[in-house]
Amino acid sequence: MAANISEETLKVSYEQLSDLEKEFEENEVEIIRHQVALNKPLYEKREKILSELPGFWPLVLEQAPPDVDQYIQPSDSAVLLSSLKNLTVSHFEIDNGGKGDPRSIAIRLEFNENEYFEDAVLEKKLWHRRAKSGWTGLVSEPVPIRWKKPGKDLTQGLLDLVVKVWEEDKKRGPGAAPITKAKDYTPAQKELKKKIETVSMGGVSFFGWFGFRGFPISEEESRAATAKDRENRRLRAEGKAVPDDEDDEEDEDEDEDDDPYGLEIFPDGDELAIAISEDLWPSAIKYFTSAQETGDMSDIDFEDGMDEDDEDEEEEEEEAKGGKEPPAKKRKA
Amino acid sequence: MAANISEETLKVSYEQLSDLEKEFEENEVEIIRHQVALNKPLYEKREKILSELPGFWPLVLEQAPPDVDQYIQPSDSAVLLSSLKNLTVSHFEIDNGGKGDPRSIAIRLEFNENEYFEDAVLEKKLWHRRAKSGWTGLVSEPVPIRWKKPGKDLTQGLLDLVVKVWEEDKKRGPGAAPITKAKDYTPAQKELKKKIETVSMGGVSFFGWFGFRGFPISEEESRAATAKDRENRRLRAEGKAVPDDEDDEEDEDEDEDDDPYGLEIFPDGDELAIAISEDLWPSAIKYFTSAQETGDMSDIDFEDGMDEDDEDEEEEEEEAKGGKEPPAKKRKA
Repeated sequence: MAANISEETLKVSYEQLSDLEKEFEENEVEIIRHQVALNKPLYEKREKILSELPGFWPLVLEQAPPDVDQYIQPSDSAVLLSSLKNLTVSHFEIDNGGKGDPRSIAIRLEFNENEYFEDAVLEKKLWHRRAKSGWTGLVSEPVPIRWKKPGKDLTQGLLDLVVKVWEEDKKRGPGAAPITKAKDYTPAQKELKKKIETVSMGGVSFFGWFGFRGFPISEEESRAATAKDRENRRLRAEGKAVPDDEDDEEDEDEDEDDDPYGLEIFPDGDELAIAISEDLWPSAIKYFTSAQETGDMSDIDFEDGMDEDDEDEEEEEEEAKGGKEPPAKKRKA
Repeated sequence: MAANISEETLKVSYEQLSDLEKEFEENEVEIIRHQVALNKPLYEKREKILSELPGFWPLVLEQAPPDVDQYIQPSDSAVLLSSLKNLTVSHFEIDNGGKGDPRSIAIRLEFNENEYFEDAVLEKKLWHRRAKSGWTGLVSEPVPIRWKKPGKDLTQGLLDLVVKVWEEDKKRGPGAAPITKAKDYTPAQKELKKKIETVSMGGVSFFGWFGFRGFPISEEESRAATAKDRENRRLRAEGKAVPDDEDDEEDEDEDEDDDPYGLEIFPDGDELAIAISEDLWPSAIKYFTSAQETGDMSDIDFEDGMDEDDEDEEEEEEEAKGGKEPPAKKRKA
């Protein structure tokens, strides 16, 4: 095997590769910024056309790719198909001409009057952050939903409890460290933990996604981590010594009881947000067209009569034969 | 269901959406062009660092995502792991300052001396083309490989035959329509068809990919189709009548015997090229790092001891816990 690389060679090159990855990442941010600006008028045009097609988004959701569809329970489908009026993704940190991170996104769902909740609009904002530890990704805040009756709460009380815990956290002040050890939990946290264990068994509602929080990384921590990371790269590029990082050691010294994701009701919340913003949203016309074609080709009710795997196979066959192009960025399973 | 959209409303909006898709596509081309230019110096920097790590690409291939890995047979692994020296992706239609299509790509593999073939370099070029029918995608030409002995031909003669048929096609002249009906096949085409049927059963070698041709769409057809498509969109946008298209009707009148993919030895050749250029190539450092970490974490030989699904699950768990970021653009299966 040619895979024998000496430890020494590795050490020299490994750090260079890691720093290079960061440079690629910075380019990617520039590219997203460019893409958002370039496509903005087209998305506005699309929204205008869609206002003539009230069933557009429900149809798109019926054809949603597995990375979205897997999170939609049958009870969610009922309200989404009958009441979802509009869906929009915005890059709220740059849309107003600002210089913010284009990877931060807001996903806004508009609803018609329905029997489940009072809200006409539910908007989930996710901020792209960098932790001191080097982790980067999306974090968020719970979005409360005003259920019409307790029996109509699709999350079975999970979302209300997450909001309650979040309110408690806010009261402790912005600088306070979150409580991440089960033995220190408040009564509301204990109740939440217990409910997560019972409700999760049957599959958490799509609406539980509005409760996703992710890692508690403040804007300040993120900005400081990004600045320090950039400075360290600059020093390494100039062949200078990089000062030891006390914070990093502190992080490695983590307590085993620590479980920052222990009270997360929708642990894949960031993944779902990315699937919506990078696949469902840009490829919506393709999913809609595909729903129309499915309807034309056969009288079978695909909704009930065919499972996802079958549909995937059909699509793949069509692609192999050079049929319609697959939605942008969509990968084979 | 809100999915009840009247046929009339649909007709009005459907064409607008379809035209809008093309505008998005044109933007996407601009974005790729921007991305290629922006990342070019970084890829050059990466190649320089990698020259110190001769085992880099074999390790990346060992960790290749399923959409690449599924095409690598055990016999391919042997030569790839022991002899692959370098892999590069270029956007050859624009790299020299031209205004060509940035979606056209060349994938170049460099090899050390090995017992299978004489070639030190194998380069597969794929051109992005638009057909009169509206189909768009990648087409290519066979790349011959000089096997050292017939017994060393990993494609079991498939590639040589594809090259032979391609040479015959070229002799008939650039304007000649390809022979796509089995009853009109030349002896070489008949032999190829027969070999495809016998060899495909056991799985075609990765090196069969060098024989991928795709649809026979010339540069002229592509350019004309693109110009006409743009003109028709302009007319529709101005509310003017679009002339009937005779070519389209001709295409719909296709003979059922026609099988333009009947002599394709690697029908997914375009998909594999895209998986390499949009995933393996940009995310190579991440796959390499992941191979290193896999090696560090355990003494188990992951190569033999763990199947892909298990690895995927591990990755997903890590992601859910907020570990390393997944490679860019990588989707969940």
